[in-house]
Amino acid sequence: MATDFTEETAADAVVDSFAKTSDPRLRELLSSLVRHLHAFVRETEPTIAEWERAIGFLTATGQKCDDERQEFILLSDTLGISMLVETINNRKVGGATESTVLGPFHMIESPRRELGESIDFVGTGTPCVVSGRGLFTADADGGFWFRTIVPSHYPIPTDGPVGQLLHATERHPYRPAHIHFIVTAPGHRALTTHIFVAGSPYIESDAVFAVKKSLIKEFTEVDDPEQAARYGLDGPFRLANFDIILQPAPDG
Amino acid sequence: MATDFTEETAADAVVDSFAKTSDPRLRELLSSLVRHLHAFVRETEPTIAEWERAIGFLTATGQKCDDERQEFILLSDTLGISMLVETINNRKVGGATESTVLGPFHMIESPRRELGESIDFVGTGTPCVVSGRGLFTADADGGFWFRTIVPSHYPIPTDGPVGQLLHATERHPYRPAHIHFIVTAPGHRALTTHIFVAGSPYIESDAVFAVKKSLIKEFTEVDDPEQAARYGLDGPFRLANFDIILQPAPDG
Repeated sequence: MATDFTEETAADAVVDSFAKTSDPRLRELLSSLVRHLHAFVRETEPTIAEWERAIGFLTATGQKCDDERQEFILLSDTLGISMLVETINNRKVGGATESTVLGPFHMIESPRRELGESIDFVGTGTPCVVSGRGLFTADADGGFWFRTIVPSHYPIPTDGPVGQLLHATERHPYRPAHIHFIVTAPGHRALTTHIFVAGSPYIESDAVFAVKKSLIKEFTEVDDPEQAARYGLDGPFRLANFDIILQPAPDG
Repeated sequence: MATDFTEETAADAVVDSFAKTSDPRLRELLSSLVRHLHAFVRETEPTIAEWERAIGFLTATGQKCDDERQEFILLSDTLGISMLVETINNRKVGGATESTVLGPFHMIESPRRELGESIDFVGTGTPCVVSGRGLFTADADGGFWFRTIVPSHYPIPTDGPVGQLLHATERHPYRPAHIHFIVTAPGHRALTTHIFVAGSPYIESDAVFAVKKSLIKEFTEVDDPEQAARYGLDGPFRLANFDIILQPAPDG
């Protein structure tokens, strides 16, 4: 380590301080992080007041977190970091369905449902049927379908530091309308994704950057009593199709 | 903003989202930060588990902070960021004394003392006299002196996330022995700095990278009753000299 701190040698000195790290991956991550953070500081030359504001923002972000709220994930989401990590870890192979982020509000404990059952909690709104064909599903043909209501756009929470950041940058907090999917099958990579409702407000400006073109689906209006009856509905509804193709697992 | 997220276009999409930011400096800072963070992620390709660990580390760092403890400043210090910001904001001009970081333990409310008075709280240890000549001080000649004890090296707190990081990277938590100075004079830039005890353990590996060569001073042993008496001491002591030169204020 150097005995004379200078702007030019600072990043090297910090990277050198990691020389004895026993985990080579940790050393690689920290060394790269330090080089990029120092480059950011040298490029922008923050004032002491700006540095203090950044310290205050990070502190408030940590202190906003509790059992139900993860403000650092929200920050990662709104800076596109979550989507970048997700996409790097799930690169598209051939025709496989693309992934997107789980988002900050996933509830692990969803009840098990039969094919065709409704997943709607609310009970109001436009009925909607989603169907598709997975490479592997419970159905012998690989087909699936379920009922719900047409999803709506909604805002991420704005009562914390991330909300302040969005406000200061005049960004809206909305996510376009979407439905989450987590799909697993033996011998295949698990898929975490959404489908987005074509034409939804904010489809071009998702607050967490999760939209991929291949995941935008038409939710077509159907006003045909026979079709409705086939799905157990008694009026107009919207119908979306989402065929899912999983990638083979790396060891499969 | 793009409707199709890709690794290549992600940073542009996030930077574009800041287009309406009314404060141009905030936009500059966030745009640069996002470009550097995305470059870090593309370079290192973190796994989901590594990303989750980073989220957990940042959250724990924020939650370790309270009225007496600032763990994010400690993190900034141990990654050399604080020193880099400090140095950029106080670039050396001509022969002016160099600055260094205040450090995480500064007590604002120090009592006012006369020239020559002791600043020692502890009352044990090797007596020490520091003298120098400032461009402007209370003394008409610009001279100052005070008594204390020879400072010792000491560790930064290791009972939080930053301590875990130091442990994982096999870095020690010690700062070399030093004495803090905050110097102000009308018409001049305030100076925040340390002097470091030449030969102190860890002088070449300060945990917060604060050592600059020009701030390392000899603490010379003096075993001369006449000199001791002159400083109000009655035995051997160590004597350090620190001449301070302040820069004119930008508007002065």
